Amino acid sequence: MSTQRIVTFTTDFGLVEHYVGVMKGVICNINPSVLTIDITNVVQSFDVLDGALAIAQAYSYFPKDTIHMVIVDPGVGGPRRPILVSAGQHFFLAPDNGVLSLVYEREERVAVRHITASHYFLQPVSPTFHGRDIFAVIAGYLSKGVEVTKFGEEITDYVRFAAPKPKAAGPSAWKGVILKVDKFGNLITNFTVKETPELFQPNARPFKITVGKAEITKLRASYVEGGQGEAFAIVGSSGFLEICVNRGSASQATGAQKGSEVSVLMAGASV
Amino acid sequence: MSTQRIVTFTTDFGLVEHYVGVMKGVICNINPSVLTIDITNVVQSFDVLDGALAIAQAYSYFPKDTIHMVIVDPGVGGPRRPILVSAGQHFFLAPDNGVLSLVYEREERVAVRHITASHYFLQPVSPTFHGRDIFAVIAGYLSKGVEVTKFGEEITDYVRFAAPKPKAAGPSAWKGVILKVDKFGNLITNFTVKETPELFQPNARPFKITVGKAEITKLRASYVEGGQGEAFAIVGSSGFLEICVNRGSASQATGAQKGSEVSVLMAGASV
Amino acid sequence: MSTQRIVTFTTDFGLVEHYVGVMKGVICNINPSVLTIDITNVVQSFDVLDGALAIAQAYSYFPKDTIHMVIVDPGVGGPRRPILVSAGQHFFLAPDNGVLSLVYEREERVAVRHITASHYFLQPVSPTFHGRDIFAVIAGYLSKGVEVTKFGEEITDYVRFAAPKPKAAGPSAWKGVILKVDKFGNLITNFTVKETPELFQPNARPFKITVGKAEITKLRASYVEGGQGEAFAIVGSSGFLEICVNRGSASQATGAQKGSEVSVLMAGASV
Repeated sequence: MSTQRIVTFTTDFGLVEHYVGVMKGVICNINPSVLTIDITNVVQSFDVLDGALAIAQAYSYFPKDTIHMVIVDPGVGGPRRPILVSAGQHFFLAPDNGVLSLVYEREERVAVRHITASHYFLQPVSPTFHGRDIFAVIAGYLSKGVEVTKFGEEITDYVRFAAPKPKAAGPSAWKGVILKVDKFGNLITNFTVKETPELFQPNARPFKITVGKAEITKLRASYVEGGQGEAFAIVGSSGFLEICVNRGSASQATGAQKGSEVSVLMAGASV
Repeated sequence: MSTQRIVTFTTDFGLVEHYVGVMKGVICNINPSVLTIDITNVVQSFDVLDGALAIAQAYSYFPKDTIHMVIVDPGVGGPRRPILVSAGQHFFLAPDNGVLSLVYEREERVAVRHITASHYFLQPVSPTFHGRDIFAVIAGYLSKGVEVTKFGEEITDYVRFAAPKPKAAGPSAWKGVILKVDKFGNLITNFTVKETPELFQPNARPFKITVGKAEITKLRASYVEGGQGEAFAIVGSSGFLEICVNRGSASQATGAQKGSEVSVLMAGASV
Repeated sequence: MSTQRIVTFTTDFGLVEHYVGVMKGVICNINPSVLTIDITNVVQSFDVLDGALAIAQAYSYFPKDTIHMVIVDPGVGGPRRPILVSAGQHFFLAPDNGVLSLVYEREERVAVRHITASHYFLQPVSPTFHGRDIFAVIAGYLSKGVEVTKFGEEITDYVRFAAPKPKAAGPSAWKGVILKVDKFGNLITNFTVKETPELFQPNARPFKITVGKAEITKLRASYVEGGQGEAFAIVGSSGFLEICVNRGSASQATGAQKGSEVSVLMAGASV
């Protein structure tokens, strides 16, 4: 067993308040040799899908036995269950609201437990901050080697949702959506090679992507191939089709935002 | 003695500049096995009360012997003293401007020392960045086990202020203030069970809270009990009365901000 | 050899996405005992000079053998080379685009290697995220003690640029620029004691600094010496002349921003 354990944070608690720092304090108070790493604490407030996307793109790069705190929890204090998930040699602590759906999708062996071992919890448990009073303490004890079976029984009726997939809009035509705009203004779409393999082929047929006020006809291999101010498509580092501008903001160039529609039309298709 | 020590950061230095990273570098240069954890580096610029609230809500969750850097220091380079405080099994490094007032309020045994051991300081000491040249080096040596007595003499005339408390505005009527708006738009007031025990009772009399353009008559146990768009009161995770909206921003819903007045009137009272 | 190594981050990846967290995961997956510290991940997007300034002001405070990731990489996926630099007892991983120019300027002994050891890279290497697939893995192996010679050959034609220096605009007159506005609204200029030693002397001749709509005639030793609302000059903690307002924003007071011109005129000079 390792003498040092990594705990990651994917939350919508933000960077201004003390919430994440306090969770780290609770964990270190139980196990001072834990290393804490932020994936992001700026998930959009209350946005479970946004949290699901963040953790799904990140967790697999961490070492075996990493504990991932995924606390996007608009239902805190209500009937939703706190869960402890073992999947793909990683552990996850989260509310049972679907925020781990994209992890479940990627992993073959998933065991989900309803955390009920309230003798571990900080008392009294605040009905507004289970991140501190439930999830952080469980992370602390889990990092010290307490067996997962000690925290609650396995359940099978946990909440999961499907990520929004592009929909066929005719032969060789699809409609999708912008999942996220990153700091550079890149537009991350929900198209992957699974939905539109034609589009991702090295010698793809001509295509037209419509997003915001822009029409895009180029798939490039890297940002630097883009001409000045030109919006183009690229396969992003997580496998999603992205709309980009070389050294510029595709969001500004196209006027598209999170939630904007993306249409893809292959040559010869008609909608 | 532990081989690893935790140093936390509560500052107004922000996330864009290198200031906090440099302080961590100075500490690790003296003691490379220190673990650093941010409570927040986005205290409102120059706002000593905002810093005092942040550290007071966070420090007690950390392990014994944690060193807390609380650097909100508009008077840096002037006559205000750098201090090292031992309180409640924790250490605090801060300017003597009252930023630890709410820690003093919570702890019975407090020892405050004026840091004068200038042979430890980085030379020349910048008159604008004692966080780096004084506080970080002291944190480094303190984390290595140097006795607090080596850093300066105990003082008793340290600066402390009272947190703003609600004021009586008639029988069973009070006026308070919004201390903070968090990332979710929750309004954290300065009401606690001490000031208005009636309000916090399970079977409280009817009451009316006026904040911004909203009148609030419900105290709920958790966010999820709130109806759509409804502003209601809740006891927050730090014990303050909060005004909230379920999955929404109470700040937007009420128009209230940091510093806005909050009136509480219990049934039968008149102002 | 130390059992724990520090890896710092200076990037333009921002705080919202998972990018920096993933790089840390990759490093810890190779060497779980690494400690990661952020210098800043909010370098202005694509702004190599902004990144160069951040790392130059920070690295020397970290311990010997620290590994600094400096990933401001608008040319990712193009012909620019990934490099590993040994300088001043520190290591640096960066794209060869000049982002380390100000480190080269400060250090006498600099060895720059072109990273070509692709058997270490995460495969397939994303053309948009070398921070993860190249730089983070090299940081991981370097932190475990792999010799720098294993990662590639030394090169001498690496990219470097000169930081923008003030220009003479007559006898005892110069024109410079605002390099950065910090969180407090302080304006960091590119004047240092090298360019205008007269200005920095204790008993300097009268001078006039023009920036935005303000004329500044006072050089003060610390912020607290400034009168209410008064813009004045100060020698900042990194050696640059700064324009400040005591407990206020010099950017607001003067209307100046990043990139604004700064004129300095010593008494008796004429432009």
